[in-house]
Amino acid sequence: MEKCDVLVIGAGPGGTPAAMALASMGKKVILVEAGQGLGGTCLFEGCIPSKIIRESARRLRELRMAKEFGIEAPVNEARVNWQTILQRKARILQMRSQAARHKGLQIPGFDLRFGRASLLSPHEAAITLADGSTQSIGFEQAIIATGSRPNRPPIPGIDLPGVLDSEQILSIESLPERLTIIGAGPIGVELGQMFNSLGTRIHLLEVAAHVLGPVDEDLARQLQQRIAAEGIDIDTGIRNLSIEKDGDDLRVRYTNAQGEAAQVLSDRVLQVTGRHPNLEGLGLENTAIEHNRHGIHVNETLETDEPGIYATGDVLGQPMFAHWATAQSLALAQHLAGRPTPFPRPEHNSAVIFSEPELGMAGLTEKQAREQGIEYEVARYDFRQDARAQIMDQAEGLLKILFERDSRKVIGVHALVEGAGELMGEAALLVRAGLPIELIAGAIHPHPTLTESFAVAVRAALASRARGS
Amino acid sequence: MEKCDVLVIGAGPGGTPAAMALASMGKKVILVEAGQGLGGTCLFEGCIPSKIIRESARRLRELRMAKEFGIEAPVNEARVNWQTILQRKARILQMRSQAARHKGLQIPGFDLRFGRASLLSPHEAAITLADGSTQSIGFEQAIIATGSRPNRPPIPGIDLPGVLDSEQILSIESLPERLTIIGAGPIGVELGQMFNSLGTRIHLLEVAAHVLGPVDEDLARQLQQRIAAEGIDIDTGIRNLSIEKDGDDLRVRYTNAQGEAAQVLSDRVLQVTGRHPNLEGLGLENTAIEHNRHGIHVNETLETDEPGIYATGDVLGQPMFAHWATAQSLALAQHLAGRPTPFPRPEHNSAVIFSEPELGMAGLTEKQAREQGIEYEVARYDFRQDARAQIMDQAEGLLKILFERDSRKVIGVHALVEGAGELMGEAALLVRAGLPIELIAGAIHPHPTLTESFAVAVRAALASRARGS
Repeated sequence: MEKCDVLVIGAGPGGTPAAMALASMGKKVILVEAGQGLGGTCLFEGCIPSKIIRESARRLRELRMAKEFGIEAPVNEARVNWQTILQRKARILQMRSQAARHKGLQIPGFDLRFGRASLLSPHEAAITLADGSTQSIGFEQAIIATGSRPNRPPIPGIDLPGVLDSEQILSIESLPERLTIIGAGPIGVELGQMFNSLGTRIHLLEVAAHVLGPVDEDLARQLQQRIAAEGIDIDTGIRNLSIEKDGDDLRVRYTNAQGEAAQVLSDRVLQVTGRHPNLEGLGLENTAIEHNRHGIHVNETLETDEPGIYATGDVLGQPMFAHWATAQSLALAQHLAGRPTPFPRPEHNSAVIFSEPELGMAGLTEKQAREQGIEYEVARYDFRQDARAQIMDQAEGLLKILFERDSRKVIGVHALVEGAGELMGEAALLVRAGLPIELIAGAIHPHPTLTESFAVAVRAALASRARGS
Repeated sequence: MEKCDVLVIGAGPGGTPAAMALASMGKKVILVEAGQGLGGTCLFEGCIPSKIIRESARRLRELRMAKEFGIEAPVNEARVNWQTILQRKARILQMRSQAARHKGLQIPGFDLRFGRASLLSPHEAAITLADGSTQSIGFEQAIIATGSRPNRPPIPGIDLPGVLDSEQILSIESLPERLTIIGAGPIGVELGQMFNSLGTRIHLLEVAAHVLGPVDEDLARQLQQRIAAEGIDIDTGIRNLSIEKDGDDLRVRYTNAQGEAAQVLSDRVLQVTGRHPNLEGLGLENTAIEHNRHGIHVNETLETDEPGIYATGDVLGQPMFAHWATAQSLALAQHLAGRPTPFPRPEHNSAVIFSEPELGMAGLTEKQAREQGIEYEVARYDFRQDARAQIMDQAEGLLKILFERDSRKVIGVHALVEGAGELMGEAALLVRAGLPIELIAGAIHPHPTLTESFAVAVRAALASRARGS
C-alpha cells in the first residue's frame, strides 16, 4: 500500500491550496480530483465562468451607452456571438487549470491523481481511477474538500429537459430568448442581469418576500429597483411552484403574493435554490465522521469527529465561497504543519455579487449586528455625489460602514456601486483587523476614486458624533 | 470693516473643505474664490475633466475590442464626437460645483464671495469683486489655499499659438490629429494615452532618461513598454528644445539622447512640465510670510511665519494633489477649532495615474526607502496570473508591497493594473496605519477580485521567510 502524509480529496479552492501549502512545507501530499482539472466548481462551473460571461455582458451594455460618452457607432447593430463567449470562457478556464497544475508540478512532494477517493478506514483510502483501476493509499492525515453541487428542489417538473441549474446555464448551447429564474438570491440576480444584458427576457421568481436574501436591506432594495428598471420582471413571495412543458416552451405556474394563480412561459428555466455538500461515495461510514445533509461536522480547527481527518470549504455547509474555502485551507495547512495561525472567522468574511452595479460586503450586516446585541452606528455615503461614480455615469449607489458605538471599530462594510468588488479589499482588512474609523478618516485615499467614499463617510460620522457630544 | 473668524482664500480642494469644516464647527468663515465656482483646478482644469475625457477614451478602446468578447458590431465605423465629450464634461463640472455651493449654503457661518483677496496686514484683507468694488475684511485667522498653475518653461517658441498647457488641452476646440507632448511625467503619460485612444497621433518628449519620474521603476518600465506598444512615440533624454511655426503646423526641434538633431511636426504642442504656486497679488509683502517660487513656508501645523495665517495645498509646493490638500485642510480645520488631530505625512500619501492600465501608489517607493535607510523587503504579484485581470483581458500588471524587514509593517504599495486606483484604498490604510503583512494575509479578500493580489503577494513573502528561517 502506497503511503503519504496527507491525502487531500478534492482539488477546488479548498483542497488545492491546502495540498500545495502542505507540500511546500515538506509534507508528502496526494491530491485526488474527481473532475478533469484543478479548480473545482469555482473555476469550471461557478465564479470564474460566470464572471467571464458577465464581462461580455458589461461590455455590450457599455457599448450601447457609447453615444452619451461622445462615441458614435452603429451600436444598434451589435449582436452577441455566444459561441465566441463560450470559446473565450473555455480558453481562460483551461489556462488557469493548467497554470495551477504547472505550479503543483514544481513542488516536490505534491502528487496529483485524477480519480474518486473513498475512505476505507481512518487511515486508508481507495482511489478509483478513470480507467477503472484502483489504488490503495495509506495516510497519516486527510482533508476532505469535495465541495458542493446545486440543489434539485422538489418542484413538479424540475427534471424536465430545459430546466437548468446554475452550472448548466453557463454552458448552454445558445442564448435563450426568454428565461425564467427560480430563486432571486445573489446568484439568481447576478445571472438574471447578465443574461438580460445579453438580450434574454428575464423573469425572476422568489419564494421569500425580498430578493437577495442575505444582503443588507438598504442595498438590496436599491438593487431591486435597478433590476426592475432594467425591464426584468420580479415576483416575490410566491408559492406552489410547478413546471410543465408547453410545446417547445416551459410553463412555470405559481401562486403570487396576492394569492392569485400566475404563470410565465419561457424557452428555458433556471433554478438557483442553493447548494448541498458532496458527501456521497466518500466512505464516511467507515470513519467516525459525523455529518448530515447540511455538511460535515468539524471543531474549531476543522477536524472532524474522526481524529486526523479534517474538512474544509463547501463540504462544511454555509458559508460557501471559494475565498472562504481558501482562507480555511491555508490556515489548516499551517495548523497541520505545526505553525498555528488563527482560523478565519465568519464575521470577517467578505463577498461580492457581480450584479449591475456590483454589490460588495464584508463583516456583519445590520441584521446580524442586532441579533448579536452589538451597539453599532452606521456611516453612510451616497455614491450619486461621488466624482468617480459620476465620471462612470453611475446613477445610484450606497456605502454603509458599520462600527461599534464605543470602540468605533469597523464590524461591517456594504457597498453598491460598479467597482464595489475592489472596495472590499479595504473592507476585509478593516473588519479583520477591527480598526477604528479614525484610521480610515486619517488614511489619504487618492482622488478621484471610489475609495474616497470610505473616508468621507466616516468623517461625516465623526463630525456628527463630535457635535452630539 | 466686516469681521470674521477665519478668512479662507481659494475654494479648491484645500480651501473649500477647510472652510466648510470650520463653519460646521461654529466659526464665522468667509471663503473667497477668484474663479467662477467651487472646486479649484482639480474640478475645473485638472483631475476631474481629464478623467471624464479618459472615460470616453476608455470606452472607445473597449468598444474596439468588442469582438474578442463575443460582441459583434461595426466598431470600425466608431467616431469621436468631441463636442459631446466637452458638453458632458461641462455638465458634470457644473453639477459638482453647484452641489458644493448648495452644501455650503446649508452651513450657518459659511460665507462664499467671488473675488480676489489681498492681505493688507496680518489681520485684514481687501476683496476685489468682479464688478471692481472692494470689501475690507478683518479676520482672526486666515488660510491661504490659492493652489498652483502650470509652469511656462523657457523654451523658444513656448508662447506660439497652438502650444497648450495641461489645463488648456482639456478644453481644446477640436481633437488634434497630431500632438507633441513635452514632458512624460504622470500627467504627460496620462494625457498622451488618452488622446492616443481618441485617435490623435502622439509623440512624447522627455528631458529625463526615463518616463514617469517619481513612479516605482519596475512599474514605470512596464507602463513605458505598453505605451510604446500602443504606437506612441517616446523620446527620452532629450535637450535643446525649441518650437517654431511651420505653415499650419508646429515643429519641435530637439537633440535626442544620441546627440543627433531631431524634430517632430504636429498641429498642436502640449507642454506638461510641472506647476508653480499662485502667490501673486496676495499681499504677502504686508505680512511676515516667508516664501519663494516653490511655495509658502509653513511649520508642522501649516502655520506660516506670520502667526495666525496658515497655508495648505499646492501653494506649499510639492506634493501637489487634490486629496493631499484636502487631508491637510481637514486636519488644519480641526487644529484651528481646538480639536488637534495628526497632520498628514507625505510618507502616507497616495496617488493614481490614470494611465492605461491605471497606476496606483501609496507610501514610499523602493528608491525613497533606500534613501531613508530603511531595511525592507518586497512582496510581488504578477497580475497576468490573476483571475479578474484575465477576465478583463489585462495583458500585463504588477503589484509590489514594500514592508519593513523586522516589523513587517507595510511602508509602500505600488500597482499597475486597470483598477489599481481602487486598490489604493487598502494600500493607503496599510501605510497610514503601519499594519504588518500578516494582517493582509489573514484578511479574507473576496474572489474573484484584484484585491486578492494583496493577500497572495504577502502569503508568498511570508512562506519564503518561513523557509528561510
